Amino acid sequence: MDRTLWWDHDRDRLELIDQTLLPCRYESIAVPDVEALIEAIRVLRVRGAPALGAAGAYGVALAARTAGGDESLAYLAGVRRDAARIRSARPTAVNLAWGVDRALAAIGDARTPDGVRAATLAEAERIADEDAAMCRAIGTHGAALLPDPATVLTHCNAGALACVEWGTALGVVRSAVEAGKKVSVIACETRPLLQGARLSAFELRRDDIPVTVCPDSAAAHLMRSGGIDAVVVGADRICRDAVFNKIGTYAHAIAARYHGIPFYVAAPSSTLDFASRAAEIEIEERGRDEVASSFGVETVPPGVPVRNPAFDATPFALVTAVITERGVYSDPGELFGS
Amino acid sequence: MDRTLWWDHDRDRLELIDQTLLPCRYESIAVPDVEALIEAIRVLRVRGAPALGAAGAYGVALAARTAGGDESLAYLAGVRRDAARIRSARPTAVNLAWGVDRALAAIGDARTPDGVRAATLAEAERIADEDAAMCRAIGTHGAALLPDPATVLTHCNAGALACVEWGTALGVVRSAVEAGKKVSVIACETRPLLQGARLSAFELRRDDIPVTVCPDSAAAHLMRSGGIDAVVVGADRICRDAVFNKIGTYAHAIAARYHGIPFYVAAPSSTLDFASRAAEIEIEERGRDEVASSFGVETVPPGVPVRNPAFDATPFALVTAVITERGVYSDPGELFGS
Repeated sequence: MDRTLWWDHDRDRLELIDQTLLPCRYESIAVPDVEALIEAIRVLRVRGAPALGAAGAYGVALAARTAGGDESLAYLAGVRRDAARIRSARPTAVNLAWGVDRALAAIGDARTPDGVRAATLAEAERIADEDAAMCRAIGTHGAALLPDPATVLTHCNAGALACVEWGTALGVVRSAVEAGKKVSVIACETRPLLQGARLSAFELRRDDIPVTVCPDSAAAHLMRSGGIDAVVVGADRICRDAVFNKIGTYAHAIAARYHGIPFYVAAPSSTLDFASRAAEIEIEERGRDEVASSFGVETVPPGVPVRNPAFDATPFALVTAVITERGVYSDPGELFGS
Repeated sequence: MDRTLWWDHDRDRLELIDQTLLPCRYESIAVPDVEALIEAIRVLRVRGAPALGAAGAYGVALAARTAGGDESLAYLAGVRRDAARIRSARPTAVNLAWGVDRALAAIGDARTPDGVRAATLAEAERIADEDAAMCRAIGTHGAALLPDPATVLTHCNAGALACVEWGTALGVVRSAVEAGKKVSVIACETRPLLQGARLSAFELRRDDIPVTVCPDSAAAHLMRSGGIDAVVVGADRICRDAVFNKIGTYAHAIAARYHGIPFYVAAPSSTLDFASRAAEIEIEERGRDEVASSFGVETVPPGVPVRNPAFDATPFALVTAVITERGVYSDPGELFGS
């Protein structure tokens, strides 16, 4: 299976699928330095919490290749400075910082730039491999929760393209299909950037899993009309009292509860934020143009302000269970091991 | 105040603001015959339940001008045939059929085509004037329900552009502002055709009423964040057990209930459908391209199907009150006078 991002060992640089080109083109781009990576993260060429974890770690490996000041303290300071910039490229996703920090910690007592380069790259590769394995484990745990046949509603893209491969929410779907269940997916398009329509629909179609796209606003109506057996979404950050995920997730959770439909969150345990409560978390407010100039056409009158929060917080009261690589948790206390 | 549609007496034809051009251009187009009117209704150059009522009646006046078979039964049959075609241009909106039927009934025992022309046009003008007066009355009743200051969340466009003038949901806002209240509006963009972003934001900005646009999927998050005092929407059809309105309304109603925010429906009593229950009503499924080729850009992979229901049904249990020109009804039995 193709990966969403990988190290090009011949050219000693990162490569990743440019997701802004989908669904029209499935192409990778070279990421030769930290600058290019930060740009790719900001404009969502690479996105999705687990993929950002790997991207953060690979970013430190890139920084180890481009930082100046050979064998001096200045060299390590340069790597750390670049790492801090990658870390803050998107403020809400906890995995990005987690991946950066793991790669930094792997530097350990490496004495030479070559040692730092090797250690950070090895750790980034380890994170990518772990992520692939975690998604398989999440898939196996989650697949058991779905009836057969099942229609699953999902939001945004918590698929292979949001991870290194396989996916979290869509990993649950893939594992259920692999186990012989008949699963079809309703992919909410996910305004403003349409990751559901562009990415989830693309990767499910590529895998011959039946998928239908609907506007986000139609989800509650489709739940009422019947035929939706479960909502399965990913997560950008799971803190002590709520799940942060793409804007719109919270509305689906409320509607699922109203209709008595189970609402599952599928995410690796690296998404867990033990330190925070929802009220403390900054929700990234993205630019006006994503909403107002959709795809180059002006759809909001000049001068009218726009709210464009990237995420929302779904309180645990609305979550039936969180599925991680370790198992299925209906109790947040158990999830956090307290 | 400008009207959304009006009869051009010099040229003996209908004129209407072409709403597909907004928010970039505010321009009217000539509608010389029934064919042009049906096209305008289908592609939403004119839309909104009250405006469609007037458009239906004006359409019969147009048919009375273009039907062949002078002074024969064939003439009247031609008018009725055209009227039936206008009536079915959009299946869910009850007002369109209501306007057509009122203009047809006004023909009475007119003996000549000239008589039919005069009677149908007079009735269409009467409907347009009544609609303007009804919106003012709805506004007055509804304005009393809003606190001061108030932030109102609305969906789609139930404004002046959805009516002959003033508006229903936005009429409530306008009347509250006219009464001296400080009201600002959150306009949900309303996928797929963005009537909230394009039309509600346009007409509120034109009237200097503060308005902010958000993706539909952000509404629940904004309700949770606080600062939304009421949801006010229009209606395309109010039947015995539910309110039909633009897709997405139902999700807002569920979220408003979850957050304890009042949910008001503002609509003229011509929107009441005494005969039906929600389960009997056909919900118009519109074309794939509205979702998949938003504004000329392919956003859904080729071959992936799309659900594009134009409306949803909000059960009365979620509606705090319906505001008509007659008053405020929190009890549907009272609303239907039973």
